[in-house]
Amino acid sequence: MTAPAATELDRTPKPEDKFSFGLWTVGWQARDLFGEATRPVLAGPEAVHELAKIGAYGITFHDDDLVPPGSSAAERDKIIADFKQALSDTGLVVPMVTTNLFSDPVFKDGGFTSNDRSVRRYALRKVMRNMDLAAELGAQTYVFWGGREGSEVDFAKDIQAALDRYREGIDMLAQYSIDKGYGLRFAIEPKPNEPRGDILLPSIGHALAFISQLEHHEMVGINPETGHEQMASLNYTHGIAQALWQGKLFHIDLNGQKGPRYDQDLVFGYGDLLQAFSTVDLLECGAPGGGPTYDGPRHFDYKPLRTESMEGVWESARANMELYIRLREKARGFRADPEVQEALEAARVAELSQPTLNEGESYDDLLDDASSYESFDIDRAREQGYGYARLQRLAIEHLLGTRGA
Amino acid sequence: MTAPAATELDRTPKPEDKFSFGLWTVGWQARDLFGEATRPVLAGPEAVHELAKIGAYGITFHDDDLVPPGSSAAERDKIIADFKQALSDTGLVVPMVTTNLFSDPVFKDGGFTSNDRSVRRYALRKVMRNMDLAAELGAQTYVFWGGREGSEVDFAKDIQAALDRYREGIDMLAQYSIDKGYGLRFAIEPKPNEPRGDILLPSIGHALAFISQLEHHEMVGINPETGHEQMASLNYTHGIAQALWQGKLFHIDLNGQKGPRYDQDLVFGYGDLLQAFSTVDLLECGAPGGGPTYDGPRHFDYKPLRTESMEGVWESARANMELYIRLREKARGFRADPEVQEALEAARVAELSQPTLNEGESYDDLLDDASSYESFDIDRAREQGYGYARLQRLAIEHLLGTRGA
Amino acid sequence: MTAPAATELDRTPKPEDKFSFGLWTVGWQARDLFGEATRPVLAGPEAVHELAKIGAYGITFHDDDLVPPGSSAAERDKIIADFKQALSDTGLVVPMVTTNLFSDPVFKDGGFTSNDRSVRRYALRKVMRNMDLAAELGAQTYVFWGGREGSEVDFAKDIQAALDRYREGIDMLAQYSIDKGYGLRFAIEPKPNEPRGDILLPSIGHALAFISQLEHHEMVGINPETGHEQMASLNYTHGIAQALWQGKLFHIDLNGQKGPRYDQDLVFGYGDLLQAFSTVDLLECGAPGGGPTYDGPRHFDYKPLRTESMEGVWESARANMELYIRLREKARGFRADPEVQEALEAARVAELSQPTLNEGESYDDLLDDASSYESFDIDRAREQGYGYARLQRLAIEHLLGTRGA
Amino acid sequence: MTAPAATELDRTPKPEDKFSFGLWTVGWQARDLFGEATRPVLAGPEAVHELAKIGAYGITFHDDDLVPPGSSAAERDKIIADFKQALSDTGLVVPMVTTNLFSDPVFKDGGFTSNDRSVRRYALRKVMRNMDLAAELGAQTYVFWGGREGSEVDFAKDIQAALDRYREGIDMLAQYSIDKGYGLRFAIEPKPNEPRGDILLPSIGHALAFISQLEHHEMVGINPETGHEQMASLNYTHGIAQALWQGKLFHIDLNGQKGPRYDQDLVFGYGDLLQAFSTVDLLECGAPGGGPTYDGPRHFDYKPLRTESMEGVWESARANMELYIRLREKARGFRADPEVQEALEAARVAELSQPTLNEGESYDDLLDDASSYESFDIDRAREQGYGYARLQRLAIEHLLGTRGA
Repeated sequence: MTAPAATELDRTPKPEDKFSFGLWTVGWQARDLFGEATRPVLAGPEAVHELAKIGAYGITFHDDDLVPPGSSAAERDKIIADFKQALSDTGLVVPMVTTNLFSDPVFKDGGFTSNDRSVRRYALRKVMRNMDLAAELGAQTYVFWGGREGSEVDFAKDIQAALDRYREGIDMLAQYSIDKGYGLRFAIEPKPNEPRGDILLPSIGHALAFISQLEHHEMVGINPETGHEQMASLNYTHGIAQALWQGKLFHIDLNGQKGPRYDQDLVFGYGDLLQAFSTVDLLECGAPGGGPTYDGPRHFDYKPLRTESMEGVWESARANMELYIRLREKARGFRADPEVQEALEAARVAELSQPTLNEGESYDDLLDDASSYESFDIDRAREQGYGYARLQRLAIEHLLGTRGA
Repeated sequence: MTAPAATELDRTPKPEDKFSFGLWTVGWQARDLFGEATRPVLAGPEAVHELAKIGAYGITFHDDDLVPPGSSAAERDKIIADFKQALSDTGLVVPMVTTNLFSDPVFKDGGFTSNDRSVRRYALRKVMRNMDLAAELGAQTYVFWGGREGSEVDFAKDIQAALDRYREGIDMLAQYSIDKGYGLRFAIEPKPNEPRGDILLPSIGHALAFISQLEHHEMVGINPETGHEQMASLNYTHGIAQALWQGKLFHIDLNGQKGPRYDQDLVFGYGDLLQAFSTVDLLECGAPGGGPTYDGPRHFDYKPLRTESMEGVWESARANMELYIRLREKARGFRADPEVQEALEAARVAELSQPTLNEGESYDDLLDDASSYESFDIDRAREQGYGYARLQRLAIEHLLGTRGA
Repeated sequence: MTAPAATELDRTPKPEDKFSFGLWTVGWQARDLFGEATRPVLAGPEAVHELAKIGAYGITFHDDDLVPPGSSAAERDKIIADFKQALSDTGLVVPMVTTNLFSDPVFKDGGFTSNDRSVRRYALRKVMRNMDLAAELGAQTYVFWGGREGSEVDFAKDIQAALDRYREGIDMLAQYSIDKGYGLRFAIEPKPNEPRGDILLPSIGHALAFISQLEHHEMVGINPETGHEQMASLNYTHGIAQALWQGKLFHIDLNGQKGPRYDQDLVFGYGDLLQAFSTVDLLECGAPGGGPTYDGPRHFDYKPLRTESMEGVWESARANMELYIRLREKARGFRADPEVQEALEAARVAELSQPTLNEGESYDDLLDDASSYESFDIDRAREQGYGYARLQRLAIEHLLGTRGA
Repeated sequence: MTAPAATELDRTPKPEDKFSFGLWTVGWQARDLFGEATRPVLAGPEAVHELAKIGAYGITFHDDDLVPPGSSAAERDKIIADFKQALSDTGLVVPMVTTNLFSDPVFKDGGFTSNDRSVRRYALRKVMRNMDLAAELGAQTYVFWGGREGSEVDFAKDIQAALDRYREGIDMLAQYSIDKGYGLRFAIEPKPNEPRGDILLPSIGHALAFISQLEHHEMVGINPETGHEQMASLNYTHGIAQALWQGKLFHIDLNGQKGPRYDQDLVFGYGDLLQAFSTVDLLECGAPGGGPTYDGPRHFDYKPLRTESMEGVWESARANMELYIRLREKARGFRADPEVQEALEAARVAELSQPTLNEGESYDDLLDDASSYESFDIDRAREQGYGYARLQRLAIEHLLGTRGA
């Protein structure tokens, strides 16, 4: 391993790293279900300047993050103008925008799937209005997190009708984007529960399945969040691999979570650190056997600890990026390590990319191949070890920086 | 409520109830990870006779449940003949058959997605052989539970390649069924983990999404199991509703589970009883607003408690059916109750079936409708109560039989 | 079963049922982590009158629920006087009072265990001030829920020091109550997580263990909450049984929860309904073999759904009590049912109350008893069924009201 | 940081590291609930030799691991003699022994708490017999894991009676050890569920609470397992800290687990790696403010992946020790790092060791101290940041070896 030593400089977050943050993350005032805000308001322009300073390339927002609900048209214009100025001053971009369809009491039963039809119509209008702004700011991705689309009482929500309405809403909005030439790609963000008892499209899989039923399915993908999958005991790396496999990883929300419990939104890697390593390995180095890769923003959707002042906010914002950069470096080192390559070979990881059937082989051919069954050396196959323990040990060594040390 | 009183007789499980059991359920010898078998072997024919006696209409099996691995061809023939005889004697049917691709050490890294290609070929052969038997026995559904398709070490499994191989296997087997005229429909059974650290296609959603990528997607649906979804904190009733919405609920595995923990396979309803009620309500009465319904077997995939002798096995087998029948009766009573209908109306459950847009309405029309946004009476919508507490209370009263009592 | 038919009247909640509610429950404005309040403020006196109307006997509160932080001394006096007047007008009592050591940002790192010593001193003062009020209002129990006592960063909190400080605080406050003649019993309420990543004294067991280390351990017990234990996958009925066994069930918080996820605070029974039945069975009928019982308040600590208006609030408040009453009636019916008694006998439930050793038997005697080992009929013991499936089935029948129907 | 560079040699596991393994861990044949064994039997003497070779200092066992059930007296003697010879040849010790009260069908309803009294008597005999062997082999600790002590049906188990019987059993066995002069300390191992639906003494807390009720409580402590606590969403480091605080950490089972799901028994650190770091930090460096420490065996209770051959078994056995050693080294580096010390100081971690009350201060003094309440600068306390984000970031840097790199 004679890779050139990475210098301190190399690890400074830079725009080409494509790190982005939600305005609602560093701007979270730390008001939670059990307590009041512990931090002051962070205005959009200030967030832009600070994020630029620490090396982010993008900022994202919900309509209501940027423009407080109840603002007059003039206030709104002023806020947007100031925000644009900050973007222009810093070079920060807005790669993604989304709508808040969950904070206002009007959405207590959902936006696209509220039992109250007038609420659904209002929700569509709220989205369209913000899509106009998203396009104006040059966003490429528009995210849909339906946090209030769900129920606590099974008998009170017709799930099939709700999926009809969800589809109706997304289809209409997709058409709107197309017709307006906004060029937006939609990304649905799944979550299993909280704030609703059960949320519609609760996992990566459910969202992908839903998308397959859409009129404009080609322009709709997903925005999976690390913690949301892990709240359902699901492997995030596996999830984004399936999304990539289906060509649907349009955006990504990185953070940390300690398994099934409340939505923690920890710093990326501060939950399941080992899985964070495999996530970065997949995003940066691709599947071992190739396949679609992801080159969009590395977007952090985390909440700075409520115990922290603004100093801790920026400390933790930097922590997300720095950990990502370190894991990326380690992933590359892992892939480049000859012993790892040898171990991957021994574990036959690449063999899985080889089709099970020979080229042109039919099932009849397979049936005729006695070596596949009748004379298959099953005892060898039963007794063989797969060498996964070794691979895991090597991965840990790379992760901990103890490889060869 | 002047529904005719159900008689004792009405509640006896009958073939038209379409209750079926896996041979591996009542036949489970109660060997677990920490202990030895506590019950004797239950032969196929005896299971058939007993199940018929208690009112089941169907029995299902994995190849290795019926024919012990290592049986000679003659032994196999004899076993199958005896099994058929029992079916013929009792009228029991075999609506579903599946393959054991998990017990033999050869499958320790999976069947369709083992890194060892020769294992994958062997797995396909094992399935084809059993599909022949399934067709011979008149099964309509062939289930795929890929319990060993997964990993514990993220770096050792190329998930995208694994999904390629999974697809390759299912596609080939679908072609085989078509060409042979077997008329089988395939049903994939998702599970998040156990026995693998993470299993591929971990939820209803992931399986539905995968199916959308198959060549013969029209003949592949899912076989969701109550407990498997609940192990991932997912709402089973919501899950099967989405499957119905996508026309993919091909088979169903009913049982009980107490949330994210080991796979308990309790009697149906003995986990989340309230959700079991909504499950039966959906299966028997359909979505409030209509939509595809399910009329396949009500298949119980449970494990009789290890503390029980064969007497307890049959006690618990009956318990599955009886509880289902009771919940069905209660669901019908719930739907028929005028106060419930009034409460559903008040909760505007049916309003969700009404499209959000008026017929022919475009987004431009919506934008022009000031009542949808500019003059929307948002305060009314914020303050209104949805009446879900009342609906839940009524559902509980029906469930507990205390309504009007 | 010739028990006299319960009349409608019997089931109306009455003061002797000892139902109590937190002011913060029916008064919850439904502001959550993701959204704003959907309901108006509910003043203490109004809550008292409404609760009295629906049959509750008691109301409980945190200092800040009753007296908004920032109130002047005069305002505070007025509020308390009005509250007392309402109590006096209705006959409602205040069986329990507690302190809010979690909402004010000052407690962001805890009250008794904040790393900031001045915060700890402030917390003790806040508690003492409210204990004075509790005594004045005649409360018998003072609850400690340390929701902010915990951490997200293991390295930032010295757990052993934290337990020292927790003990110091409780010990001093116990002395204060003793010296003042307040006659309060303390009850610690465990919770595993949320709002902190990990909370100290996370389960019934941890709290009981902690209490064993206190100076005035005899006056300190626990206040276990259904959902808090279930968030940790623990059996609530088992937990309160252990608390009873140790003589420490001083108060109880009943509600509903769907396993490990965010703290749902559903109506009692709306999570794990079957376990709610065994909880009520234990509380009302006692352990089958006897032992300490609970006769304190049946306190509901739930949150009315955010979708509901005040009408739904009272609907759900009533639902808690009515379900409890129904389960109590069913539990009594279950215990009185001769077939259940026969099944309990067959399952040898009472045999567990019989000591394993004979009276006066030493281990030497046991070693000399060949029937216990050398000639033990182990095969009989291996093969016997315990009859638990039957008991469960009978319990379900009683729960669903289908027994004999 | 001028600590002397650790040499390769330093990191080789050595007897003074006190690493021990269960015979059932490296000897696990990988038979699980869904599949047959994938590995051959590993005889005790071979395990001893191999463990000695890789640097372990101890081996532990259940009676039935070492002596297969059904062995004749002569076979048993021979097995024990061979095992002792291997111990003698290698210098390996047996620090802990335990009883298998879970595999034999006779224990299907538990050992000490089976409803069948004759089973309870048999269980006591089985334990005594093995305690004799434990003493003969010089074990200091005797572990009790009551994996079958529990229930699936709440109505079938009188929990208070069960705790009576549990206590009766432990008390008698403690007396036996005392009288025989065995010098054993007992260690109870908690687990929340699996193989029973709910297990008695489900967490560290419950076990500590139970111990407080024992006659010989001074000789009984706990043997907490990483994964068992994490299956209940509990923080393992916090749990062992409370056990240390109560002087009850008598033994320890280290492994890995990915939150609430089936018992995975992964290699130590392969679940929540970050928490493994804080666990080792606590075990090796003690609480920041002092307090009891642990100097017993570092015992690994893990299961080598079922995909692995014996080569993978030893690979993973080494991985446990090597990771522990690395984490120990990193913990020491973390504690020694001046910037960490400065950050700990800033986060006031040591301040928590300072009593909340001044020496000799009474609550009256506190009430008289206006600075504690009336004139407390609450705004400062609300606004201050605790600096935990920085500490976490430094911990991560040490863990990943990127500190200063």
